[in-house]
Amino acid sequence: MIELRSDNAAGVAPEVLAAVQEANTGSALAYGGDDLTAHLHDVVRDVFEHPTARVFPVTSGTAANSLAISAATPPWGAVLCHPSAHIITAEGGATSLFGGGAVMQGVAGAHALIDPDNLRSALDGVRWGDPHESQPSVLSLTVPSDFGTVYQPDEIKVLTAIARERGLKVHLDGARVANAVAALGCTPADLTWRAGVDVMALGATKNGALSAEAIVAFDEEIADELVYRTKRAGHVTSKMRFQSAQLAAYLTDGLWLRLAANSNERMATLAAELGAIDGVRLVERVDVNMAFAELPAAAIDVVTDAGVCFYRNGPSDIRLVTSWQTTAEDVAQAAALFRAAMTSP
Amino acid sequence: MIELRSDNAAGVAPEVLAAVQEANTGSALAYGGDDLTAHLHDVVRDVFEHPTARVFPVTSGTAANSLAISAATPPWGAVLCHPSAHIITAEGGATSLFGGGAVMQGVAGAHALIDPDNLRSALDGVRWGDPHESQPSVLSLTVPSDFGTVYQPDEIKVLTAIARERGLKVHLDGARVANAVAALGCTPADLTWRAGVDVMALGATKNGALSAEAIVAFDEEIADELVYRTKRAGHVTSKMRFQSAQLAAYLTDGLWLRLAANSNERMATLAAELGAIDGVRLVERVDVNMAFAELPAAAIDVVTDAGVCFYRNGPSDIRLVTSWQTTAEDVAQAAALFRAAMTSP
Amino acid sequence: MIELRSDNAAGVAPEVLAAVQEANTGSALAYGGDDLTAHLHDVVRDVFEHPTARVFPVTSGTAANSLAISAATPPWGAVLCHPSAHIITAEGGATSLFGGGAVMQGVAGAHALIDPDNLRSALDGVRWGDPHESQPSVLSLTVPSDFGTVYQPDEIKVLTAIARERGLKVHLDGARVANAVAALGCTPADLTWRAGVDVMALGATKNGALSAEAIVAFDEEIADELVYRTKRAGHVTSKMRFQSAQLAAYLTDGLWLRLAANSNERMATLAAELGAIDGVRLVERVDVNMAFAELPAAAIDVVTDAGVCFYRNGPSDIRLVTSWQTTAEDVAQAAALFRAAMTSP
Amino acid sequence: MIELRSDNAAGVAPEVLAAVQEANTGSALAYGGDDLTAHLHDVVRDVFEHPTARVFPVTSGTAANSLAISAATPPWGAVLCHPSAHIITAEGGATSLFGGGAVMQGVAGAHALIDPDNLRSALDGVRWGDPHESQPSVLSLTVPSDFGTVYQPDEIKVLTAIARERGLKVHLDGARVANAVAALGCTPADLTWRAGVDVMALGATKNGALSAEAIVAFDEEIADELVYRTKRAGHVTSKMRFQSAQLAAYLTDGLWLRLAANSNERMATLAAELGAIDGVRLVERVDVNMAFAELPAAAIDVVTDAGVCFYRNGPSDIRLVTSWQTTAEDVAQAAALFRAAMTSP
Repeated sequence: MIELRSDNAAGVAPEVLAAVQEANTGSALAYGGDDLTAHLHDVVRDVFEHPTARVFPVTSGTAANSLAISAATPPWGAVLCHPSAHIITAEGGATSLFGGGAVMQGVAGAHALIDPDNLRSALDGVRWGDPHESQPSVLSLTVPSDFGTVYQPDEIKVLTAIARERGLKVHLDGARVANAVAALGCTPADLTWRAGVDVMALGATKNGALSAEAIVAFDEEIADELVYRTKRAGHVTSKMRFQSAQLAAYLTDGLWLRLAANSNERMATLAAELGAIDGVRLVERVDVNMAFAELPAAAIDVVTDAGVCFYRNGPSDIRLVTSWQTTAEDVAQAAALFRAAMTSP
Repeated sequence: MIELRSDNAAGVAPEVLAAVQEANTGSALAYGGDDLTAHLHDVVRDVFEHPTARVFPVTSGTAANSLAISAATPPWGAVLCHPSAHIITAEGGATSLFGGGAVMQGVAGAHALIDPDNLRSALDGVRWGDPHESQPSVLSLTVPSDFGTVYQPDEIKVLTAIARERGLKVHLDGARVANAVAALGCTPADLTWRAGVDVMALGATKNGALSAEAIVAFDEEIADELVYRTKRAGHVTSKMRFQSAQLAAYLTDGLWLRLAANSNERMATLAAELGAIDGVRLVERVDVNMAFAELPAAAIDVVTDAGVCFYRNGPSDIRLVTSWQTTAEDVAQAAALFRAAMTSP
Repeated sequence: MIELRSDNAAGVAPEVLAAVQEANTGSALAYGGDDLTAHLHDVVRDVFEHPTARVFPVTSGTAANSLAISAATPPWGAVLCHPSAHIITAEGGATSLFGGGAVMQGVAGAHALIDPDNLRSALDGVRWGDPHESQPSVLSLTVPSDFGTVYQPDEIKVLTAIARERGLKVHLDGARVANAVAALGCTPADLTWRAGVDVMALGATKNGALSAEAIVAFDEEIADELVYRTKRAGHVTSKMRFQSAQLAAYLTDGLWLRLAANSNERMATLAAELGAIDGVRLVERVDVNMAFAELPAAAIDVVTDAGVCFYRNGPSDIRLVTSWQTTAEDVAQAAALFRAAMTSP
Repeated sequence: MIELRSDNAAGVAPEVLAAVQEANTGSALAYGGDDLTAHLHDVVRDVFEHPTARVFPVTSGTAANSLAISAATPPWGAVLCHPSAHIITAEGGATSLFGGGAVMQGVAGAHALIDPDNLRSALDGVRWGDPHESQPSVLSLTVPSDFGTVYQPDEIKVLTAIARERGLKVHLDGARVANAVAALGCTPADLTWRAGVDVMALGATKNGALSAEAIVAFDEEIADELVYRTKRAGHVTSKMRFQSAQLAAYLTDGLWLRLAANSNERMATLAAELGAIDGVRLVERVDVNMAFAELPAAAIDVVTDAGVCFYRNGPSDIRLVTSWQTTAEDVAQAAALFRAAMTSP
C-alpha cells in the first residue's frame, strides 16, 4: 500500500515521540504551568524571531483556526477568506460557533489564492458602521492553500496591507505552514508577522506530531483573549507538558522544516513524473506536497487496485498528498503504477 | 518533593505509553476512520456491557462534559448539578458556550452530593412550559464529586428516577469515575447506564493517560449529535488513533481500575494517618483519592517547606490528592512530615 | 418630497392604528395570554387555510427570519439561500447568532431567484453525514426577492421538493409577501405551506403596521421551539395584545392585500413610465413594488434635487420602492421629473 | 374586575398613544434615521443630565437587559446579581444567549437587595485571571428589585464602588426604575450614572408605553457595541420613530414619574390597609408599587372569587401590583374585599 491520501494519515516522527517519552518523568503542574510549556514559549519566540509571541497548544487544526479567529473578531464580524478555505469547507462551522455567530465570506482568486483586487473591492463595497451588514473584521489566509499553492511573502504583505487599512486583523491558517516555509526558503517571521499576520495556526499534526497543534499569537490583545477562549472550549489540556514537548521538539533544530522538505521533495518528484505521462494533466500548481490531477477514470481504477491510496474528487479527478514519511521508493512505485495504467491497453 | 496537588500532575502509565508507541506503525485514516478507533468501540461496549454505546475521544475533561451536555439540552435548558460541580466552578462556562446559552443551576446536598429532596423540590417549583423560566433539561452528577465523595449506585438511581420523571437527561462527570468504580467495587454498568445515566465523561488523563479523554454515550440521539458537535468544537483529532490506542489500553484488562485502586489505597492510608494526628481534622469523607483537612497554618507551612506539594484552599485548609503514581513511601513520608509538624514546638 | 426609498419609510395604515387604539381598553394578561392574541391565531389559520398554524408576533423582520430559521436548523447546519437574500446581506449575521453558529450558503440563480439546478447540484455535492462539512438543513426562499422578483407557486414547489428529498426544512422570508400574493393572485396557502413551506416571516411593518411582524409556523416542532426561542431573544413583548391587534387588523378583510396591491400598482405605473423614457433602463423584472433602474448620473442628481427620494446603489444605479401610501400623484410627479431630467440639456 | 396582577397588564397612557398618532405623518427614514429618534437622544440626555448618553429603543425588558449586559461582558464573564433577579429567574437565559455563554451568579442579601459584604467576599474569592473560573465582569442591580424594594442611591454607590475596584461594569435593570425614582425623590442621574451605573434598561412598557423599552448607555464602548448587538438581535425596528415617539413622550414633562407616582401611592394606600387587617401579614417592605402578603388560603379564594386579580405564589402567598392605571376606587374596593374576607366567618 502506498499512502497518498493525506499527510494526516502519517505517523509520528521519531524525534517527537522521543520527546513525549522524555517528558514522562516525575510530576508537573497541569494546564500549562509546567517547565516544558515555559520552554516552548522560548522556542517559539526564537524560531519566529518575535520577543513577545505567545503560544497556545491546542489539539486540532480546527480548534487552532476557529479559536484564533474568535479572538480577533467581534460576533458581528465577517471573516474574509478564499471560498476554498478549510474554515469554510471543512471545519463544520467552528468559526461561526466560537465566533459567536460571526460569518465567513469568500473572496475569490486564481490558484485558491485571494486576489488583491477582489479583496479591495470587497472592502470598498462594505457599508462600514452599518449594523445591517456583517462588518469585515478578519482576513484569513490559508498558507499553503487547500490546493497546495503558496503566496509569496510579498503577496501576503499586499493583502494584509489592504486589510489593515480597514482595521481588519489577519489570521493565517498554517495547517501546512512548514511546507510553505520550506518551499519558499524564507524565514518563519517573513511569512507571518513581518508580512502582517496577527495570529496563526502553527500546524504540526500533519507533519509529524502525535497530538499537538498550536496557536501562535503575535498580537497581545488576541493572546489575552485566548487564555480564556481556549480553556472554555476545552482546549487547555491538563497534561499540556506532553503537547509542549512535542511542539518544542518539532520546532527545535529545524525538524519541522526538514520533515516538510521531505514531503515537498517527494511531491516534486511525483508531480514531475505524473506531468510527463501522456494523458495525465496536473490541474493546479504544485508548490508544496499536494497535487491535483486529471486522468481517465479507468486508469485511476487500475492504480487504486494496485494499492495506491489517494482521494478521488470526481470520476477522473484525484488528489495526491505526500508526507514526512513518504519515501523515494513510494514515489517511484506510485509513478510507475500511474505510467503503467496509462500505457496498458 | 512529594506530589499531592492533583492527579493531573502525574505522568503517563507505562501500558498507555506503550500503546501509543505501538500505534505508530504505518499510516491510517484520520479523524477516527482507523482500526484502533473501531477497536475502542468494542472495548467500551464490552467494559460497559452495553451493545450500542458509542465513544467519542476528546482531549479534555472540560470538552467531554460540556459537549456531552450540549447534546442533551436545548439552548433554553437548565443543567442541574451540585453547586460545587466542576462544570460550574472550573470549566470557564464551557457548558453555557457549547449549550448555546443554557444555564447551570445548583442543587445542594451534604458531602457535595445532590440531595434527592432538594432535587425533587427544585423540579416541583419549575413553571414547566413557561419560556420565561429556563427549563431543567439535564441532571449532571459528578462521580466522585469534586470533594472526593461518591454516590452509591442506588443513590444515583434515586436521583435519575426523579429526573427522568420530568424528562431530563442524565449526564455523569466521570473525570475520576475509575476511582469511584474501584472504591465501590461495582461494575461500570451499574454505576452508569444501569443507574439511569445517558452520557458520561469517561476520564482517563488524571488516571494515567497521555492526552485522552472520552465521552461515552448510551443514548442514541445524544450520540448522533455528538458526531457534529465534537467536530465543530475542534475535538475530533486527525490522528485519533493515538488517542484511541491510549483509551483502549486504559480500559483493557482492568488497567484503569488497578491504577485507580492504587490512588484510592494510598489515600486511604494517608487519610487514616492524618486523622490520627492530634489537631488535624479531616473535613470531608474520604471515599476515593482526595482528602480535605484542617490544621494550623504554621504546621502547613512547615510541611510545605519540607517538600510536600498540595493545594491550600485557605490559611488552614488543604486538599490532598493521590494518583496512580503515588507510592507507599510517598504516603509514609508525607504522613511523617505532617506528624512532625504538628508535634514540633 | 416624494418618498420612494423604502416601504419601511411609510406610515401606519389607518385601520391598523385604529385597532391599536381600540385595544387600549382595560387590562389584559401580558406576554400573549390575552384575547386579542388568541383571536389572532384564529385569523391566521383562517387566512392561511391551515388548521394548526401558529403565529408568533415579533418586532422585526430580522427577528422573524432568524428565529424561524434557528428553530429549523441544528447549530451545525447550513442555510441555503440566494446570495442576495436579506438574511445574508442585511441582518448583521442574526441567523448565525440565533442559529448557534449555523452558516449561510448562497445558491445562485437569475433574477435573484434560486435556480433549481443549482440547488440540486449544491445538495448533490454535499458529503452528507460528514461533520467536517456544514450540513444543509434549511432552504430559505425570499418572496418576493430583494430585487422585487417573485417565484410562481409552482417554482416554489419544485425547489421545496428538491430540499425535502434531502430532509431540509423550508423557510420563507415574507417581509413583502403580501405584495407577492397580491401580484400573483394566488391564495396565501398556495404560496406557502401548500408549496412546501414550513415556517415563514409574515411581514407587516413595511406594508402598514406600526410595530408588528410575525412568524407563522406550519410545522409543529418548529412552533414548539419558537415558544422558547422567541422569549429568550426578547421578542415576546409584555403588551403583546397591541401587536396582535395590529396583525389581526392587517389580515382581516384582505387589508394586507389591498395595501400591497396599491404598492404594486403604483410601481407598475411608475416602471412603465420609466421604461418608456429614452436612456432609462430597468435592470430587473418588476414583479411587485420595487424597480431597479440605470440612467445617467447627472439625471439622477437632477431628480434627487427636485425632491424625489430613493436609494442610489451606484453612480447611475437606483432603487425605487413604492408603498401602501404612495399615491397616483406621487407616481405621476416622479415620472415627470425623471422624464424632464432625461430630456433637459 | 380589579387588576392587581402586574403593571404589564395595564394599558397605554393617553399621552403616549397621542404621540404615536402624531408621529404618523409623512414618511421617515427607517431604523432610527428619523427626527423623532434624534429628538429622543436629546430628551434622554436632558432627563439624565448626561451629555453623551445614548439611547437604544428595543422592544422588551428582556432584550434591554440581556443586550445591555452582552455589551459589557466578555463571553467568559460572570454576571453577578441577586438570586431573585429577573435576568436569572424570568428571562429564559437571554443573558447567556446574547452573552455568548456568559454565566449568572447569585449574590444574596436581605429584601432582595445585594449585601455589600456578600459582594465583596464573592469578589475576594475569585481566582482572577484563571480561565478555569468564570470571571466576574458585570454587576447587575435590579432597581426596584423583583420584590418591590429599592436601594438608596448611596447603597448603590457602595456596591458599584466594590465592583469597579475589580474592573466590573455596572448594569441596572430598570424595568420599574420610574417607580424607584418617584419613590426616592432623587434625580434619575443620582440613581444611575452618578451612582456608578454604566448601562441601564429604562423600562416604559410596564408604566404606560405601548411597545417601547430602551437601553440607556452612559459608557461609550458599551454604546458602540450596542449599535451592532441590537441590530443582529432583531431589536432595531424599521419604524423606530413610533417607539421613539413613545419614549420621548414618556420622559417629557415628567410623565413617567407622574405615572409611577400614581402606582406607588395606590400601593402605599393598599398596603397600609392590608397591613391593618388582622391576619394579613406583609412579607416584604413596600417601597414602590408591589406588595407581598400572607393570609389564609380560604380568604384568598374569597377575594379572588370577588373579582380581584393578583398572582398567587403559594397557597397563602400573594403578590399585588398596582399600575399607572390603578384608581383610588380600585384600591378602596380591593381593601374592602380583603377586609371582608378576613372577617367573614
